[in-house]
Amino acid sequence: MLSFIGLGLYNERSLTIQGREALADADEVFAEFYTSYLAGTTVSELETTHDIDIEVRDRAGVEQHPEPILDAAADGHAAFLTGGDPMISTTHVDLRLRAIDRGIDTRIIHGTTVQTAASSLTGLQNYRFGKATTLPFKRSHGGAGVPESVLDTINANAERGLHTIVYLDIDRENDEYMTGDHAAALLDDAGLDQVAVVIGQAGSDDPTVSGGRLATLRSQSFGDPLHLLVVPGDVHPMEEDALRTLAGIPEDAL
Amino acid sequence: MLSFIGLGLYNERSLTIQGREALADADEVFAEFYTSYLAGTTVSELETTHDIDIEVRDRAGVEQHPEPILDAAADGHAAFLTGGDPMISTTHVDLRLRAIDRGIDTRIIHGTTVQTAASSLTGLQNYRFGKATTLPFKRSHGGAGVPESVLDTINANAERGLHTIVYLDIDRENDEYMTGDHAAALLDDAGLDQVAVVIGQAGSDDPTVSGGRLATLRSQSFGDPLHLLVVPGDVHPMEEDALRTLAGIPEDAL
Repeated sequence: MLSFIGLGLYNERSLTIQGREALADADEVFAEFYTSYLAGTTVSELETTHDIDIEVRDRAGVEQHPEPILDAAADGHAAFLTGGDPMISTTHVDLRLRAIDRGIDTRIIHGTTVQTAASSLTGLQNYRFGKATTLPFKRSHGGAGVPESVLDTINANAERGLHTIVYLDIDRENDEYMTGDHAAALLDDAGLDQVAVVIGQAGSDDPTVSGGRLATLRSQSFGDPLHLLVVPGDVHPMEEDALRTLAGIPEDAL
Repeated sequence: MLSFIGLGLYNERSLTIQGREALADADEVFAEFYTSYLAGTTVSELETTHDIDIEVRDRAGVEQHPEPILDAAADGHAAFLTGGDPMISTTHVDLRLRAIDRGIDTRIIHGTTVQTAASSLTGLQNYRFGKATTLPFKRSHGGAGVPESVLDTINANAERGLHTIVYLDIDRENDEYMTGDHAAALLDDAGLDQVAVVIGQAGSDDPTVSGGRLATLRSQSFGDPLHLLVVPGDVHPMEEDALRTLAGIPEDAL
């Protein structure tokens, strides 16, 4: 049996009770933190809190050499941990299909995600979000500024009045996380003259939610990683109230 | 202090550890189950598992008469429980803004949601979903068949190659939940000649994931509630593999 367990948003306590029970039952526990990452904890805190040993696999150790994980799952109960929800990345879907192909039972234990938190923390309604996009570091896409696809997504959503979640690049190798001000500067320089909201430390006891024009946000700071940026589309009166109260967006900015 | 706590997807064990700790700390616990609902548990199971007393509030008891909740939050630590993530519904945003207006500290403890599960369980990638929509019972919208807005959303997403989550109506007053076959019949009759995936019992240990043409799905059954329907847009090769393996979509249907 291979249990894919989502660790949720932020720290060692973001896991569900169902997930914790599955961990207690597992014979071997693997994890990957290259597609996602829990900013509020460490591997050793996870191990201590849940009384487990975790074998952290890098990208090659999941995608090119998944055999140790699959062998453990064929012989007993293996757990595979990821931040957020376990199937957010194609790499996990691939691992699941390989397991099924070997006749191994699989199951998914869901985790909390920033996708939902983006709506919850801003008060923007979840059914009014369009397609999401990811803003990469310049060096990651080898181009200058903002890839056309990012602007296209924001604009196509805006045409339908929809909000856009902009995931910010994570460079685990260099331990760098794109900040909200960095993202606001990139988008502002790309000519996007709009209001946005930056969320920091989602899932923690004290997340930050800060809104304003991109030109203003670019010179603010939003605390520890991870950050996320939301570009609102048309806002309903309740959403407008929420943005003012929760994100501190000034009267004249909306 | 008012803690909004998301109970997550399915039963009394879908809550996060952070949520359980907040519950243990709360002086009074309120809940509402009219916007959402946990199919895999009962209020008394929740009370026993978490060693709490829950005061369930109906719609009027949250929206017209929130004073008991706000008073408890002003005097001590009140918890407000909902299925899924706590801020999915505007009614909760409204309650939060009222609390802030009274100078009460608020916080959100996120829960797992079917929005994320829809992507996880089907293998469809989360950043390739467009706007979501809700399919109401005919009696709920007073019209015949499927509201134009539902078809418009599916079609507008499809034009951009995006997947659509179709939430199915919940009628808590009459204890009725729209099933996947009912939804498939409505959409098929509305002329939507497409492949879809029905998810049942998301968040349970054994969810069902069944794909096929709407004309076929309408005569199938998908087990206990709740059900959800996903209409895939363009699919990448990995998504196609996932739909075949996880949802059993036949070779010639895609």
